[in-house]
Amino acid sequence: MGRFKRTIYLHMKTLEEARAVWQEAMGGYRTAVEQIATEQALGRVSARPVTARLSVPHYHGAAMDGYAVKASHTFGASDVRPLRLELGRQAVPVDTGDPMPEGTDAVIMIEHAQEVDGTAIEIRQAAFPWQHVRKVGEDIVAGELLLPQQHRLRPADLGAMLAAGVSQVPVFAQPRVWIQPTGTELVPARRAAQAKPGQIVEFNGTVIASLVRENGGVPLLQDVVADDYESLLDAVRRAAVSPADVIVLNAGSSAGSEDYTVSILKELGTLLVHGVAMMPGKPVLLGRVESKPFIGLPGYPVSAIMAFEQFLRPLLHWMQGLAEPSDPTVEAVLGRKMPSKLGLEEFVRVILGRVQGRLVAMPLQRGAGVITSLTRADGLLRIPQEVEGINEGEPIRVRLLRSEDALEKTLIMIGSHDNTVDVLASELKRLDARLHLSSSNVGSLGGLLAVRRGQAHFAGAHLLDPETGDYNRRYVERYLAGTPVRLVRLVRRQQGLLTAPGNPKKIRGIEDLFREDVRFVNRQAGSGTRILLDYELERAGRSPEGIQGYDWEEYTHMAVAVNVLSGTADCGMAIFAAAAALGLDFIPICQECYDLVIPEACWTDPKLEFLLDVIGSERFLERVRALGGYDPSESGTVVGVWDGTAWRETKS
Amino acid sequence: MGRFKRTIYLHMKTLEEARAVWQEAMGGYRTAVEQIATEQALGRVSARPVTARLSVPHYHGAAMDGYAVKASHTFGASDVRPLRLELGRQAVPVDTGDPMPEGTDAVIMIEHAQEVDGTAIEIRQAAFPWQHVRKVGEDIVAGELLLPQQHRLRPADLGAMLAAGVSQVPVFAQPRVWIQPTGTELVPARRAAQAKPGQIVEFNGTVIASLVRENGGVPLLQDVVADDYESLLDAVRRAAVSPADVIVLNAGSSAGSEDYTVSILKELGTLLVHGVAMMPGKPVLLGRVESKPFIGLPGYPVSAIMAFEQFLRPLLHWMQGLAEPSDPTVEAVLGRKMPSKLGLEEFVRVILGRVQGRLVAMPLQRGAGVITSLTRADGLLRIPQEVEGINEGEPIRVRLLRSEDALEKTLIMIGSHDNTVDVLASELKRLDARLHLSSSNVGSLGGLLAVRRGQAHFAGAHLLDPETGDYNRRYVERYLAGTPVRLVRLVRRQQGLLTAPGNPKKIRGIEDLFREDVRFVNRQAGSGTRILLDYELERAGRSPEGIQGYDWEEYTHMAVAVNVLSGTADCGMAIFAAAAALGLDFIPICQECYDLVIPEACWTDPKLEFLLDVIGSERFLERVRALGGYDPSESGTVVGVWDGTAWRETKS
Repeated sequence: MGRFKRTIYLHMKTLEEARAVWQEAMGGYRTAVEQIATEQALGRVSARPVTARLSVPHYHGAAMDGYAVKASHTFGASDVRPLRLELGRQAVPVDTGDPMPEGTDAVIMIEHAQEVDGTAIEIRQAAFPWQHVRKVGEDIVAGELLLPQQHRLRPADLGAMLAAGVSQVPVFAQPRVWIQPTGTELVPARRAAQAKPGQIVEFNGTVIASLVRENGGVPLLQDVVADDYESLLDAVRRAAVSPADVIVLNAGSSAGSEDYTVSILKELGTLLVHGVAMMPGKPVLLGRVESKPFIGLPGYPVSAIMAFEQFLRPLLHWMQGLAEPSDPTVEAVLGRKMPSKLGLEEFVRVILGRVQGRLVAMPLQRGAGVITSLTRADGLLRIPQEVEGINEGEPIRVRLLRSEDALEKTLIMIGSHDNTVDVLASELKRLDARLHLSSSNVGSLGGLLAVRRGQAHFAGAHLLDPETGDYNRRYVERYLAGTPVRLVRLVRRQQGLLTAPGNPKKIRGIEDLFREDVRFVNRQAGSGTRILLDYELERAGRSPEGIQGYDWEEYTHMAVAVNVLSGTADCGMAIFAAAAALGLDFIPICQECYDLVIPEACWTDPKLEFLLDVIGSERFLERVRALGGYDPSESGTVVGVWDGTAWRETKS
Repeated sequence: MGRFKRTIYLHMKTLEEARAVWQEAMGGYRTAVEQIATEQALGRVSARPVTARLSVPHYHGAAMDGYAVKASHTFGASDVRPLRLELGRQAVPVDTGDPMPEGTDAVIMIEHAQEVDGTAIEIRQAAFPWQHVRKVGEDIVAGELLLPQQHRLRPADLGAMLAAGVSQVPVFAQPRVWIQPTGTELVPARRAAQAKPGQIVEFNGTVIASLVRENGGVPLLQDVVADDYESLLDAVRRAAVSPADVIVLNAGSSAGSEDYTVSILKELGTLLVHGVAMMPGKPVLLGRVESKPFIGLPGYPVSAIMAFEQFLRPLLHWMQGLAEPSDPTVEAVLGRKMPSKLGLEEFVRVILGRVQGRLVAMPLQRGAGVITSLTRADGLLRIPQEVEGINEGEPIRVRLLRSEDALEKTLIMIGSHDNTVDVLASELKRLDARLHLSSSNVGSLGGLLAVRRGQAHFAGAHLLDPETGDYNRRYVERYLAGTPVRLVRLVRRQQGLLTAPGNPKKIRGIEDLFREDVRFVNRQAGSGTRILLDYELERAGRSPEGIQGYDWEEYTHMAVAVNVLSGTADCGMAIFAAAAALGLDFIPICQECYDLVIPEACWTDPKLEFLLDVIGSERFLERVRALGGYDPSESGTVVGVWDGTAWRETKS
């Protein structure tokens, strides 16, 4: 093991070193310059300074509707001494935009002149020279610099160029990027539904192509080639002689493909960087094939995206004469301790929202394969390689993946997840497109603790008190002393046992979990469902010993359901909605209450007021009923007002 | 006059009112929902929540290269007590991504196993269940909510959908916008060079189409129609029955076309708003034709763009289920007093840069016809209607038209303009694409005053001291007492008289300016060129009286040149480069010095150090020589070091 690791680390560069090598090698690389029609140049980048060919305006024109006159003829006119000008000779009617007739140099507004007999006008005020006249070159003078080189063209820039007679503009060609997915068991995304075990759905190609497009490039997405040396070599050779400006190889996930790529790069070009001390994104390869930049992107989707941003994104900008764009960042406090490996630059996806005045960042899952950690993220936290981790509550800089303004409209929910929360999120968005619900699923107890630390706008909880049969109140008393909150019922819901369709093992209730032929999958300690199971076991007078899989913990209802569906387990406990979603059989055990725990400090936040309106709306209730397994008769009711030390009376 | 104005103001709404009316009428308007291939959905907006069709991964797979085993078979293995597992039966070789063989639930990494005789492996550590296994649904569980509705799809979103088997996605159709340019004397932009006096080059159509595209719409740009009632009515009728979702009419510049539009709107639909108290953008019209939103955009380009942003941009977002995007703003201090009309919301284009720690905003020209006021702007300052103006030095919020980060790389130059400054700007950009030079041309003295107020990184000045024949030093002493600066020579340049090509009036020197048949165009008081002219007049023993046009002031060399070119004047004084740019004749009068005045406080700013490097570079000098009329032999020399009270020795 030691030897293997050492080999890797010997050639691995820090992110900073790798970026410096890359910029040194590629920073001056440009695409060809091409002339294109100005009308088509939106978003393109000028390759040379653009100068005006014509002046704007290109003639002296009237800037008002009225009469063109020679100013010196009007001198002396006043209220006391009105002046007459002969129509046609001394005063020529003009509309805005008309050229000034020969010999005139001012316009008198139509409202300031009185026509007399249709032959003259009378004025009571003198005109000054060039009054209400747009003179030649007032906006743009021919020969003048209109736009600098290396400038991304915006709508108004196109207008200025067209106005100044520049109908063709020299721009950098859009970088063409050869994108080569590789892998022996890849299935095209369109055939995802037919994928067999061992076959991986190819979607990185589309992701990379979209990223290329977003950064001004033209993706040339290729068909998948097999993950063997000859196929890869052949693909890279074809790329080298193609019109592509950049070659991107998206590695297979096996270690072998990385070695192949290194060999190919050494054979056909130059290897610049092999491995970067970043996570995700470590196995990136940088080099050159003939004169073309070459990037080997890792196989895991999040790794590929992170490596794209560090290396391909700046390259695409350099090639068009632009600087690498800078990303907006924001200061936040970290909601949960994040350990991190020394010597590795780590990128952690977080959700972000302003809770009680502070911007809070809650880390999402870290796996490089988990693409939803990016789709759900509001921000990206970078932990520098010299830092071993960040403590809860520490101030941090987070790169924004949504607009800063959007964060002010984000509701942070932490705790247990329920499918009606997704309905809630969707209804919120439908009624106000700016409202966004970001959630972190850490179980009911985790939610209460987040509320205590002021990290969430609300928690979702379904914590049974085995002594009273009541929900959540006992836990609020225990964990939220000193933190006033209100409990709002979201729904009552069915909990029960999930089995494969048709219930092949004939499971009828809790007793069957003790059978030798039944493998169970459990929820994590602290989750409401786990507490419920333990309560039911106690009621049945049984201890958990003897249940196969009692120690196997999953974090969500759906994770339990999918284990049952895939046959990893025969049975698990979850809500009806999870069984319905995957077509599993469901044996009801009991109905439980799922409540929102809302800190008093957030109660008057307009976002929460809006949330409560939605919960009370007929449309929400209908959608919840349609899910099945839910009883929304108490939805929106305040079932408890906790002042931090005691419950106050409510009229629920 | 009174009556006309009153008619307008009676129906004009404040910007806030007009936006409220528009949102009330159109806020819920949506385009049709269409199903498109996920691969093609970048940037589109989901019309419904998207749920996963497949789990990801869809099978239990090896997460490492190694051996698949049943964890319970490995219990007890240790360094002291290595354990053997039979290859093929108890330990199956797997690569990353391979499906887990039946009966196995853990992977032992290849580095942690020792092959024995090719028939078994030996391990020294037990595996725990599901070690190095990516389980079904670890990332995504079928049925789970992947993305909310009304969500703009990003590259990672496409990846997540494809991975989860979602190959088609319901999105809002892109709003199709009928863009109808109107006007009787419009020339298509492609034929700009052939435009005759009175003919206006049509470019608003391209600007509006580009804005529509930037905001997710599909522009349907029409041919120009004449500015008369019947033609406009016909165009709107055709738009109404077309597949367009929105109708935009870009008004002709005459007052008549506005009246026509109002009549048409009343005849075919509903008029919602006629005129908004904003500037530029006042003559905007909002309404509905049949069920389609209708916007009449003003004819002046800046007005059209401002009205687009206030009304069409939000509409295009609403139609796709999105909220109107918010614009980033920044706090700055205003560099020059800006009066503003009470009762009118005014949008002022400004340049922005950080000078001596403060972000300074300098207003550009205000005219609604001046499109370069937008192309040159770094920001947009909004003066509310209840404010009569803003004082110099007042803190203001400015909407950014470039990234905040870019402002830190912006050099602000105020003062006299010279064509070599454009060369400087272009060389800066070539060497570092992030560097941007924003300039405000207010003449040499204006530049010194801006330096005194700390509003510029440097000024450009060519101020002759008639007593000594020296440049700039005397003015620095007079205006910059207490403000240490350095004077750096940029160039020596030819000043002279400009005449029409061939010099038809046979002008040979200053004396000819007094001829009766010669109309002169002058520069503004305080400009270096004006001072130079007065000096030459004094040397010739003449007073300015008797020069026709001495009081006619233009603000730039090029403005003087264009007046000569267009025949408005017979002669003006300017630099050689201005004559050369427009092909005018040039009668040299003298050589003068053009210096940069750099505040000591900015001297060590890396941007200025870089600027000085560029001035000293051979490439810059060559490009300056190529312009003609310049002597760069002293370029880059420090010609004076002023400590605020006296000049210090320099070794120039």
